[in-house]
Amino acid sequence: GLRDFCGALHPARVAEFMEGLDAQESWRVLLAADPELQTELFGYLDPQKQTEVVHNVAEAGDQQAISRLVVDMPADDRVDLLYRVDNSVVDELLPLFPRDDRHETLRLLEFPEGTAGSKMTTEVAKLSEKLTVREALEEIAHQSEDLETIFYLYVVDEGGRLQGLVSARQLVVHFRKPDTPIAELMQRDVVTVRANDDQEAVAEKVAAYDFLAIPVVDDERKLLGIITHDDIIDVLRAEATEDAHLAVGVAPLEGGYLDTHWFTLAWKRGMWLAILFFAALLTALALRNYEGDFQKAAWLVLFIPLVISSGGNSGSQSATLVIRGLTDGDVRLGDWRRVLKRELVMGLCLGTTLATAGYFCAVLLTRSALPEGADAVAIAAESPPPTMGEVLVVPITLLLVVLCGTLSGGVLPLVFQRLGLDPALMSNALVAGIIDIAGIIIYMTVAVWMVSGLG
Amino acid sequence: GLRDFCGALHPARVAEFMEGLDAQESWRVLLAADPELQTELFGYLDPQKQTEVVHNVAEAGDQQAISRLVVDMPADDRVDLLYRVDNSVVDELLPLFPRDDRHETLRLLEFPEGTAGSKMTTEVAKLSEKLTVREALEEIAHQSEDLETIFYLYVVDEGGRLQGLVSARQLVVHFRKPDTPIAELMQRDVVTVRANDDQEAVAEKVAAYDFLAIPVVDDERKLLGIITHDDIIDVLRAEATEDAHLAVGVAPLEGGYLDTHWFTLAWKRGMWLAILFFAALLTALALRNYEGDFQKAAWLVLFIPLVISSGGNSGSQSATLVIRGLTDGDVRLGDWRRVLKRELVMGLCLGTTLATAGYFCAVLLTRSALPEGADAVAIAAESPPPTMGEVLVVPITLLLVVLCGTLSGGVLPLVFQRLGLDPALMSNALVAGIIDIAGIIIYMTVAVWMVSGLG
Ligand SMILES: [Mg+2]
Ligand SMILES: [Mg+2]
Ligand SMILES: [Mg+2]
Ligand SMILES: [Mg+2]
Ligand SMILES: [Mg+2]
Ligand SMILES: [Mg+2]
Ligand SMILES: [Mg+2]
Ligand SMILES: [Mg+2]
Ligand SMILES: [Mg+2]
Ligand SMILES: [Mg+2]
Ligand SMILES: [Mg+2]
Ligand SMILES: [Mg+2]
Ligand SMILES: [Mg+2]
Repeated sequence: GLRDFCGALHPARVAEFMEGLDAQESWRVLLAADPELQTELFGYLDPQKQTEVVHNVAEAGDQQAISRLVVDMPADDRVDLLYRVDNSVVDELLPLFPRDDRHETLRLLEFPEGTAGSKMTTEVAKLSEKLTVREALEEIAHQSEDLETIFYLYVVDEGGRLQGLVSARQLVVHFRKPDTPIAELMQRDVVTVRANDDQEAVAEKVAAYDFLAIPVVDDERKLLGIITHDDIIDVLRAEATEDAHLAVGVAPLEGGYLDTHWFTLAWKRGMWLAILFFAALLTALALRNYEGDFQKAAWLVLFIPLVISSGGNSGSQSATLVIRGLTDGDVRLGDWRRVLKRELVMGLCLGTTLATAGYFCAVLLTRSALPEGADAVAIAAESPPPTMGEVLVVPITLLLVVLCGTLSGGVLPLVFQRLGLDPALMSNALVAGIIDIAGIIIYMTVAVWMVSGLG
Repeated sequence: GLRDFCGALHPARVAEFMEGLDAQESWRVLLAADPELQTELFGYLDPQKQTEVVHNVAEAGDQQAISRLVVDMPADDRVDLLYRVDNSVVDELLPLFPRDDRHETLRLLEFPEGTAGSKMTTEVAKLSEKLTVREALEEIAHQSEDLETIFYLYVVDEGGRLQGLVSARQLVVHFRKPDTPIAELMQRDVVTVRANDDQEAVAEKVAAYDFLAIPVVDDERKLLGIITHDDIIDVLRAEATEDAHLAVGVAPLEGGYLDTHWFTLAWKRGMWLAILFFAALLTALALRNYEGDFQKAAWLVLFIPLVISSGGNSGSQSATLVIRGLTDGDVRLGDWRRVLKRELVMGLCLGTTLATAGYFCAVLLTRSALPEGADAVAIAAESPPPTMGEVLVVPITLLLVVLCGTLSGGVLPLVFQRLGLDPALMSNALVAGIIDIAGIIIYMTVAVWMVSGLG
């Protein structure tokens, strides 16, 4: 029953079905599957579920079974899993690994999360330069079971240093000339990454070159492992999520939203929220200087949220366009003049539009009858409605604030990049916070200058 | 010189170097390269540069040369390019294509941008079920030049319907048993997509299954083409950019930020900015009802930006966490209860923290001496500073606004998903807009209730 079910479907489909099960039930399904399928199935479970299963089985005392499963995983996935498992459980499982696997695992665990080393698998096809096509095919046929991919075959010297690369395609094309030495076919200018390179930079390289895998080497160009296309896809998705989180002021999470402990989540959000809160306090401090003016021209209060949200929105747009442009490689630091010009045009264009709409709305709002109420007459006496000329404060402010938003939103990510910081840190939230303060100051400066009796 | 330079480096590196050149110079470099390298080099240029080169060469009258280059491109990249080229130029080039390529190109151009059909390549290895391993290897060696990838070989019947899949790895493993019929090796449960499927859904499937390529079939399961890992990576990056843009209210762009015409960009930003502007006008409308209250308690004005930005920031955080969770598959519609509970806890936790800080800051700001100025005494007489109890308006509002932000930010993307809309449309900008209005109403309602003499 269960065994046939597991065997008939693609393991990824079985894993999808298992998502509804708890750790104990998942383990039972895994045990029912063919032994050679177990590791593959387990590999398709989502990371959180994998961790739960390991904890659960280890707690139940079956360290043997779970360590067999874990040791069979591809090296990169095994290490990813062990990062997430409690240290006490890792210490129980490691001694049960065969010696070589234990050493390999310990070595890989040294690479910090987010580096190329932490994403690489060591199950890579290494060939000597001296082989012929036939010998290479035989060697691959032999090793194949243990290899993550056979599409690139790496040629190394006796010291394990990377000499070149032969693709499976070349071997197949030369299938009828089996005596061709692979040294003749091999490509010598191999693009590599270092184990300590940032995973994001690695992913960008793979995306640019359309590689299936990229080799990871050390300082002596010794081949340490490869990173394959599927893990690159995972990196790109994780980085996109990280950037989206940074944009709204959430520090990078390690797991998914629902998997993160509420306290961790509160901390990662609260940290940024507090910074933005204290930035916003500056708006209160700025407004305090104008309390008297609001007494004399109460209508100015109406447009405070409008002014700051227009600035914040246009600033966030610019910041995001430039940040994504930098990430996608469409924008470079050297383009700062073009960005500046572009955002100046945008600011003028969008600012003028909003200003025009804003003027008419502001006239309507300030000059139509006040809502009925006991105070209406009293208010009108103390703070008369503005003249058509005074209402110009609103459109002029809107234009300036939008301009300020687009220019700072466009330039600040470039400044961050220039300073060697992640431009994604120059988040929408931060840009909006800065524009909020600038907006208040612009608004009140224009008002003091244009409305009679203020200042 | 130039020819050797082009031949010695990886074409992607040469293309990188060519980025600094204009269309005419690029064309001269391309012509200098080996003929078989030209198309590959051209393929690595960025889309904008490719388009420029085509326009430039066509204008110079060399339709023959450029059509030869274009027709040699992989079908998917060729179609992508023709989408971007002016129709008049496409009409000049198409008649110069060999008949088959012209028909294929026209057929592919029918698939709308963003569908699986628009991303697929038709250069796929199709084999008959009757072949043995040796025959299959020979067939592949023969076809190899024209194939985009040889890593998956698709088995089709006489009608071209997909029967199964054999991997190059299996062929290599059975290299020493060359008479094995591939029917014996082939996997029959092949995961496929339809030509009209959304490219994002296709990319998610490939990411989940860790495929190198996915076959595209029609309603009769006829194999139309495949989508390969490198194009999936491009789709994922494009979709991440699209979502980041939607989050700040920028309608999806077709090209990069710097490549988009300023007028198009202004329109795509202005549209959303206008919507958000009219939402913000509602805050002005809401504030109008309280003009009298601001006369009596001027200090309330100080905290307007603080209150709305705290709500907007916490709401954007929640919306982004849930939207990315939905995209990454960590959150499903069925999880709405967990999301709601989580955001309730977050709202209480973050809201209480901000409220506590807010209370002390508000007391300091309202009770310390006003900035020096002629008006200070007059203001104090008309609008006395609040009592310690009245200042409680600020923390109570902060708590409620943050709660409102986290709850609506968490739930609205799920509502959009439920309605069949893209949850990414429930952008930070939109959430912030909604919370701005809610924030004003909550603030003033609490103020009227707590501050003596208002309402
Ligand atoms: Mg890892
Ligand atoms: Mg690419
Ligand atoms: Mg892997
Ligand atoms: Mg993986
Ligand atoms: Mg990043
Ligand atoms: Mg990163
Ligand atoms: Mg705001
Ligand atoms: Mg296309
Ligand atoms: Mg995957
Ligand atoms: Mg392609
Ligand atoms: Mg491509
Ligand atoms: Mg999308
Ligand atoms: Mg889409």
